[in-house]
Amino acid sequence: MVFSGFEAQHDHTPGYTERLGAPLGGAVRVRLRTILPVESVALKVVQVGEIETLGAQEIAAPASASGPGRWFEAQLPLHDRRVRYAWQLNLPCDHLNLTALGLHHTRRGFRSWFQYLPGHVAPEWAWRSVFYQIFPDRFRNGDPSNDVRTGEYVYEGRPVEHVAWDHPVDAHGDIHGHYGGDLNGITQALPYLQQLGVNGLWLTPIFVSPSNHRYDITDYRQVDPHLGGDAAWSELVQASEQAGIKIVLDGVFNHMGNENELFRAALAHEDAPERALFTWRDEPGKPPYHAFFDVPTLPKIDYCNEAAVEEFFSGERSVVRHWLRQGAAGWRLDVAHMIGSGGTDADNLPLHRTLKAAARQERPDAYVFGERFFDPEHALDGQGEDGSMNYHGFGLPVMQWLARATYYQEPSRLDGVEVAEILWDAYHALAPEVALSMFNLLESHDIGRAHFRLGGDRSRYLAALTLLMAYPGVPCMYYGSEIGLSQSRPGNMPWCREPMPWDEAKWDLTLREQIRALVAVRRQTPALQRGHLRFLHAEADALAFLREWTDEAGRTSRAVALASRRQGPHAVTVTLPDGQWQDARSGETLGGGEVTLEAVGGRLLLQG
Amino acid sequence: MVFSGFEAQHDHTPGYTERLGAPLGGAVRVRLRTILPVESVALKVVQVGEIETLGAQEIAAPASASGPGRWFEAQLPLHDRRVRYAWQLNLPCDHLNLTALGLHHTRRGFRSWFQYLPGHVAPEWAWRSVFYQIFPDRFRNGDPSNDVRTGEYVYEGRPVEHVAWDHPVDAHGDIHGHYGGDLNGITQALPYLQQLGVNGLWLTPIFVSPSNHRYDITDYRQVDPHLGGDAAWSELVQASEQAGIKIVLDGVFNHMGNENELFRAALAHEDAPERALFTWRDEPGKPPYHAFFDVPTLPKIDYCNEAAVEEFFSGERSVVRHWLRQGAAGWRLDVAHMIGSGGTDADNLPLHRTLKAAARQERPDAYVFGERFFDPEHALDGQGEDGSMNYHGFGLPVMQWLARATYYQEPSRLDGVEVAEILWDAYHALAPEVALSMFNLLESHDIGRAHFRLGGDRSRYLAALTLLMAYPGVPCMYYGSEIGLSQSRPGNMPWCREPMPWDEAKWDLTLREQIRALVAVRRQTPALQRGHLRFLHAEADALAFLREWTDEAGRTSRAVALASRRQGPHAVTVTLPDGQWQDARSGETLGGGEVTLEAVGGRLLLQG
Repeated sequence: MVFSGFEAQHDHTPGYTERLGAPLGGAVRVRLRTILPVESVALKVVQVGEIETLGAQEIAAPASASGPGRWFEAQLPLHDRRVRYAWQLNLPCDHLNLTALGLHHTRRGFRSWFQYLPGHVAPEWAWRSVFYQIFPDRFRNGDPSNDVRTGEYVYEGRPVEHVAWDHPVDAHGDIHGHYGGDLNGITQALPYLQQLGVNGLWLTPIFVSPSNHRYDITDYRQVDPHLGGDAAWSELVQASEQAGIKIVLDGVFNHMGNENELFRAALAHEDAPERALFTWRDEPGKPPYHAFFDVPTLPKIDYCNEAAVEEFFSGERSVVRHWLRQGAAGWRLDVAHMIGSGGTDADNLPLHRTLKAAARQERPDAYVFGERFFDPEHALDGQGEDGSMNYHGFGLPVMQWLARATYYQEPSRLDGVEVAEILWDAYHALAPEVALSMFNLLESHDIGRAHFRLGGDRSRYLAALTLLMAYPGVPCMYYGSEIGLSQSRPGNMPWCREPMPWDEAKWDLTLREQIRALVAVRRQTPALQRGHLRFLHAEADALAFLREWTDEAGRTSRAVALASRRQGPHAVTVTLPDGQWQDARSGETLGGGEVTLEAVGGRLLLQG
Repeated sequence: MVFSGFEAQHDHTPGYTERLGAPLGGAVRVRLRTILPVESVALKVVQVGEIETLGAQEIAAPASASGPGRWFEAQLPLHDRRVRYAWQLNLPCDHLNLTALGLHHTRRGFRSWFQYLPGHVAPEWAWRSVFYQIFPDRFRNGDPSNDVRTGEYVYEGRPVEHVAWDHPVDAHGDIHGHYGGDLNGITQALPYLQQLGVNGLWLTPIFVSPSNHRYDITDYRQVDPHLGGDAAWSELVQASEQAGIKIVLDGVFNHMGNENELFRAALAHEDAPERALFTWRDEPGKPPYHAFFDVPTLPKIDYCNEAAVEEFFSGERSVVRHWLRQGAAGWRLDVAHMIGSGGTDADNLPLHRTLKAAARQERPDAYVFGERFFDPEHALDGQGEDGSMNYHGFGLPVMQWLARATYYQEPSRLDGVEVAEILWDAYHALAPEVALSMFNLLESHDIGRAHFRLGGDRSRYLAALTLLMAYPGVPCMYYGSEIGLSQSRPGNMPWCREPMPWDEAKWDLTLREQIRALVAVRRQTPALQRGHLRFLHAEADALAFLREWTDEAGRTSRAVALASRRQGPHAVTVTLPDGQWQDARSGETLGGGEVTLEAVGGRLLLQG
């Protein structure tokens, strides 16, 4: 049921749920509003494997309730780490259950029931943020004196090279080519980022590493001197705090670089205690230890060993804790799904719980999210990561629809109806705090740039960014997206890692203004930051959804996103909730009900 | 995607999957047939948290392949206890993924991917069986000398009563009224059951217990003397073996009766070792120990304690093992979802794994399934129960649709489209071996009789039984269903537990013949016993689905079930796969393609 109706409403916002994260063992007040002719309403709760039916009382409509309907209230007991519940609506000639999936005549599977996570503390600042991903070597060279010099060292048998900033990325420079971007450059660009409206940065790895991407870390406790070292980090932290910008670091905890001293010690002596940090094996044609995709330079860390858990996650001086103390606001976890024991992903979820618990001890609002390129649902029970990178339930389907091709350039006839279906399926199965903490993105250092994949078509690119800014979760742009940075040839990495041009003559300034406006709307609109989601419309070439936020007094504010993938004009008819609406871009006002709107380029409509 | 098309096919049957249950660490050959203009096909497998893409080769169509399409083959590596996989179909202008959900343009959530369970041994005899549930006190009194006598003992402060066989069930006799049915009576009725075509029995509890339902067991190792005792059990086992009928017993392992000597010993002394079998507490208004719904006569067993695990499940002389040695063919597990540690359902799944492992050691084909009245999906990974009672994904929605009311008599406007949706959602998420081991039923000793709920309307009743015999899973009728046994007033237990009348004048003999014919078709049709499921059609008042079985040579046999809930005539149009079809009841033949059929009363069409 992608398109749930308006007959009955319950969601996580204060009008319907007293508060999020109330402690285990307590209770919270939950409410339902319905226009159906109910005779009674009950709350169904899964308790110790049974469904318990609890009474709900009719209450007066909250003071400022906008819209029609009777209100019912019940107490939800918080007896478990994840409470599943649903409403039952008894009508004279029918009865219905309301779950996160909508209204149904039968009990649906528990996967679709509402969820409450007692004691769960969400990093709510992230919901109010717009992130910007920076690949440090390619964003801005703030201090040429720290650049990697050609031939400075040899990695994987090949000397590294310094590459000129205006030299397009080529295969030759895949991991050996260093452009010279650094943290000093990011500090210099903070006013630029502030002006764009960005208030969160995700930096891909910044620690000492031989490659340009730095996912092969030699020293987890030192910022790479080629990025300016620890001093540049301190300076960046201080300046970004003043600019109201928080920084999330990239935690590469599945594997390390083979130049890391822990690994070198393990290799050096058969009886070194560091041997226990890795999983040794004897298989023909493979390195004698488990490694990321069997790449010998990337030995996999074995968390079977408590010393590994302490070194990286839980110990008093763990890497996770260290950088939070040094000013990081959270961690993006590289290949989060792979982390585990014995050379596999065994114990993945318990390890993530340990990691997050340590992070939260250190910084109570740390935002921790994993790279999970595939369906992450099983990992998102709220006890481990706050959310995950939302490739599965947002970025990949949306871009595949707009580009009519997958990120591997396979042609695709995916239509908007199927996009709505997969987005909705992924969204509704998550607890609301988790759904709002998903890290949404269209592109990254791993997959082709959206601008390139859309053939530079500004309309579809803006449609993509409209959806990004409006969808539940934390939006993240990729450096250069705002000025139309593209790539020199098709494909994913390394082609999507062109250096950011700082010659404004190369910028699409109109685009930048349009994106700045979208970012501003996102940052000013609580319904977009933390509202409930409801799909309004889908057809082959268009999508529309509604975000809703109801306050304690019953007052609902709303936002609607509409996007088309057509290149010519495209009038789309949607039915808006009643009331006055305003177009976020043009300021034009319109009434609710059935309206036909030009959808090309994407639109945001606001109410309340 | 309830209605997946015929453009591409892969399923668990031998034409598409080399075999089920191949050992962990090996591989099996899997195949795809498609009529789409593919350029290439690949197999996608989830491996250590990543999706690995493996090649698939085009092969010649198998010798006897019926129907068009090209065939592709790949090797599926069996690296995990549950392998998730999907197919990718690359077309010139599109690309598609085939999962258990059907064809899609995007990767769907892993929940919908195909599943393979390496090393899983399914109780395949159960797939070939039609079960009959007997509530022993009410089926047949074979030996009046063992009847409970009025006043023979006192239970819960009230003397038990002997009730005359023709006295309707009343509230007075809820748990204290004993009618005198016994195992001797079942033995006598074996020819009757054989004639009906039944070859599996599920007996509700038969061990020494004070109530008439015997879910409050005093002695787990002795058959109640009022049912004929151990001697009557031996005789029944011997005779039923000769009759080709297997018996599944009811295992009440969440709680015991308070007259059980283990519990009496625990109560008697604060330091009795038996204290550890229960969870003691001090809560006002509740018994000083955890109990089933706080009923003091039903103390809950605490499996935190290894002695409890050994006593009931894993010990050399455990209850589970004991009765398998004494001839039981499996266990139905009462409130399987509640079993756990510390007065809760903690450790539920590991305990079920332990239970099943012990059962399988004792009897390699033991059929173990739980009563899970609610969504059981999380428990059905193949490592614990073989399946569960299918209230959620079959019996409750089907009966609610046909009766236009829930089993609590709440009116419902549930339509056939939503029924298909919930059945399909529940089915497609299970591994095929698990889906085929689900225990399907329309009614039981716990919920109102189908015949009564349908107002005695034979057409809808036959529609219900047609769906029961045709749906994936093990069908089970409730004693007396075949002769139209009803109940004296609306409601669930105890009203659904009327004694079976043995005066044939009270039987609906026409109905019995019709049901006998349905049972015979089920038992003769491999496609119904182990075929794949595909919904063909749903509308408010009608449902149709297809079962398909493809053998090693590519020959497909099929069955279609069609049911209407109308009381008058109802012509329904469905599209059948090509080829010659035969109506199982009338013998009438018809061709494939779009056909319009009278659906009232239910129909089964067969092919191949």
